[in-house]
Amino acid sequence: MADLPIRIGIVGCAEIARKVSRAIHLAPNATVAGVASRSVEKAANFAKANGFPPEAKIYGSYESLLDDPDIDAVYLPLPTSLHHKWAILTAEKKKHLLMEKPVALNVAQFDDIVKACEENGVQIMDGTMWVHHPRTQKMKEFLNNKELFGQLKSVNSCFSFYSDPDFLKNDIRVKPDLDGLGALGDAGWYGIRSILWAADYELPKTVAALRGPVLNEAGVILACGASLHWEDDKVATFHCSFLANLTMNLTAIGTFGTLNLTDFIIPYQEHEASYTTSAKPGFNELVTGWVPLPSEHTVNVSLPQEACMVREFASLVQNIKKNGAQPDKKWPTISRKTQLVLDAVIQSIKNGFEPVEIVS
Amino acid sequence: MADLPIRIGIVGCAEIARKVSRAIHLAPNATVAGVASRSVEKAANFAKANGFPPEAKIYGSYESLLDDPDIDAVYLPLPTSLHHKWAILTAEKKKHLLMEKPVALNVAQFDDIVKACEENGVQIMDGTMWVHHPRTQKMKEFLNNKELFGQLKSVNSCFSFYSDPDFLKNDIRVKPDLDGLGALGDAGWYGIRSILWAADYELPKTVAALRGPVLNEAGVILACGASLHWEDDKVATFHCSFLANLTMNLTAIGTFGTLNLTDFIIPYQEHEASYTTSAKPGFNELVTGWVPLPSEHTVNVSLPQEACMVREFASLVQNIKKNGAQPDKKWPTISRKTQLVLDAVIQSIKNGFEPVEIVS
Repeated sequence: MADLPIRIGIVGCAEIARKVSRAIHLAPNATVAGVASRSVEKAANFAKANGFPPEAKIYGSYESLLDDPDIDAVYLPLPTSLHHKWAILTAEKKKHLLMEKPVALNVAQFDDIVKACEENGVQIMDGTMWVHHPRTQKMKEFLNNKELFGQLKSVNSCFSFYSDPDFLKNDIRVKPDLDGLGALGDAGWYGIRSILWAADYELPKTVAALRGPVLNEAGVILACGASLHWEDDKVATFHCSFLANLTMNLTAIGTFGTLNLTDFIIPYQEHEASYTTSAKPGFNELVTGWVPLPSEHTVNVSLPQEACMVREFASLVQNIKKNGAQPDKKWPTISRKTQLVLDAVIQSIKNGFEPVEIVS
Repeated sequence: MADLPIRIGIVGCAEIARKVSRAIHLAPNATVAGVASRSVEKAANFAKANGFPPEAKIYGSYESLLDDPDIDAVYLPLPTSLHHKWAILTAEKKKHLLMEKPVALNVAQFDDIVKACEENGVQIMDGTMWVHHPRTQKMKEFLNNKELFGQLKSVNSCFSFYSDPDFLKNDIRVKPDLDGLGALGDAGWYGIRSILWAADYELPKTVAALRGPVLNEAGVILACGASLHWEDDKVATFHCSFLANLTMNLTAIGTFGTLNLTDFIIPYQEHEASYTTSAKPGFNELVTGWVPLPSEHTVNVSLPQEACMVREFASLVQNIKKNGAQPDKKWPTISRKTQLVLDAVIQSIKNGFEPVEIVS
C-alpha cells in the first residue's frame, strides 16, 4: 500500500507561498492540506487564487491550523522576526516544519527552534530550494571528482536583484522589525549556503565582512559582502544586494577544475538547467586560445526544484510517521551553519570589519 | 603613399615574446625588425623558431638594439625588476615603448619611466591585450548604455591558473628579485585592470586586501584578493592565484544589467569571442524562471587581440613620426592607475589588511 501523502498546512499567505503551494501539489508524496491567515477571507482568497484542492481547509488563525490533527506538517513563510515564536509552537504542536530562510534572526534563536523540534520528534528543514535541484547533485559530483576538479581553492557567489522605490520603502525585507537581516538574510543566505555547499559544509575558520555595506535609514542591510577563510587557504567571497540587477552567479575553482553558472538559485528555465565545467584546461601553443574548451552540461527536470524540496521533506516525515525513524539531522545542521556564518558577517560589520572566528 | 610600417625590436626572448612577435607580424602597420638577447645564439634561434622575416636583425645585447637607428619602437618583455632600467634607457634612445605588465615594481618607478618617455617624446603603452579586443569595445557599449545597464554597482574578477611544482620553484614570477609582485603582478594586474575598465577608469577611494594571501618562502604572493570601494558605494573584488585552475571570470553588475564572461583575458578561441548580457530581467509569475533570458553575443575577429594592440601602438607611433603629434597620454594613465591599485593591495597586506586610500 502506498504511503499516504504528507498533509502540509501553510501558515501565512506570503508571496513565496504561492510557489511553494504549487510545489506541494506537484510533489508526489505531499498534499496541500490548508492555509492559515489572521484573516479567514485572505486565506480563502489565497486558496482560491492558487488552485487549492477542494478538501484543503481554510483557517482564520495560525493557531487553529497548528491545532488541527489532520495537518502533518507546516510550511512557514512568515517574516524572520516571527520564526522563533511560530516555529517553536509548530514543533510543540507536533507538526513537522518546513520553514523559510533565513531560519532565524540569529543562531541562538535557531537553536531554540531545533531544540523544540528535537524534543517533539519533528523534522525541520529550511526552504532553500536550489540545493534540491538535480543539477546541484550533478555539479557536486564534479566538485567531488578529485581528478577533474582537484581540491577546492576558491568560491565566489553573488545574488543581487534591483528593487524599486516601493520595495525599498515598504517591503518586509527592509523593515528592522520584520525581516531585519535585510539583503544579507534574504540574498546573502544563498551566497553563504552556496559557499558552504561547495566546501562540503566545512565551516570557515574566519569570516570578515567587506567594507562599505549599504544600510537604509533604519539600519537594515541593503547590500554587503564578506570573505570566508579556511585553515587550508581556501577562500570565498560573496556579495548580496537589493540595489543591483538580478544576478545569481556561482563560481567554484579547484586545483584542476572550475564550475561556473549564472542562475544557481532559480534556474533560467524550469524544464532544464545548465552549468559549465572546465577541467585541466591549458592553452594552445601560442597562448591564443584554450585547450580544451569548457563543457556545458544540461540537466532535464521532471520535477521543479521546489517540488524536489517538498518531496525530500515529505519523505523524511513519512519515514518518521511510518517507520518511527528519528528526524534527520543533516538539514538543520546545514541551516545552522548558514546562520552561523550570517551572524559572523553581522558581527564583523559591527566590529569594524575585523575577522570573526567561527566557533560551531 | 601608405605609411611605412613601424619597425619594432624585441628586447629579450621571453615566452610571451613569441605571441607578440606573431602579433607584430599580423598588425598591418608594424613589422618585426629584430630581436636582442644577451646571447646572440639565443636571439638567432628565437628569430628562426618564430618565423621572423629575413630582414629582421639579431642583436647580442639589448643596448645594440636600442642603438640601432633602424628600430622605431621596442617591445619589452623583461622581468618586472628590469623594467625601470631598460624602459628608461629605451626612452632615452628615442625608441617608442610597448612594455609587458606589470609595468614596474611600484608607481614611483613607473613615474620615472613615464617621465623619461615624456622628455624624449616617445609613446608608451603596456601589453595588456584584452582591452584591445573588439569584444571589449562591444562590452563597453553595453556598460555605457544607461537604459540597459544603468549605473555600475559591482564588479568581480578572477584570474587564476594552476602552476606545477616546477613553476612554483623556478619561474621568474615566483622570484623576489625578478617578477617580485608574483601572482598579484602577473594575474592580479588583469583583475585590477578589468575593474578599472568597468568603472571607466575612475579610481576607487579605498582598496583593502582580503585576508589570507598565500606567499611562498621568499615572500612572493602566490594567491591574494582585494576589495575596491568608491564614494558612490560601487564595490569590486578580485582574486588572483597561481594555485587554482585556469579561470578568467569577469562580472559587472549595474542597476539594470549584468555582463558575464569567463575568458576575458584570453578568449577561448581566436576567431571569435563571446559574452553574455542580461538587461532588466525579472521572473515569470511564480518565480520559477527568468524573463527575459540573458543574451549571448559573439564577436567575430579578423585580427587577434594582441595584433589589435600592436596596431593601436604602431598607429600612435606613426602619428608621432609622420604628423609630429604628441604621444598619447591615455595608455600610460591607465597603466599608472592599475599600478596604483596594485601598490595599494600590497600596502594593505603589509598594514594588516587595513584599507588604503588611493591618492592619485
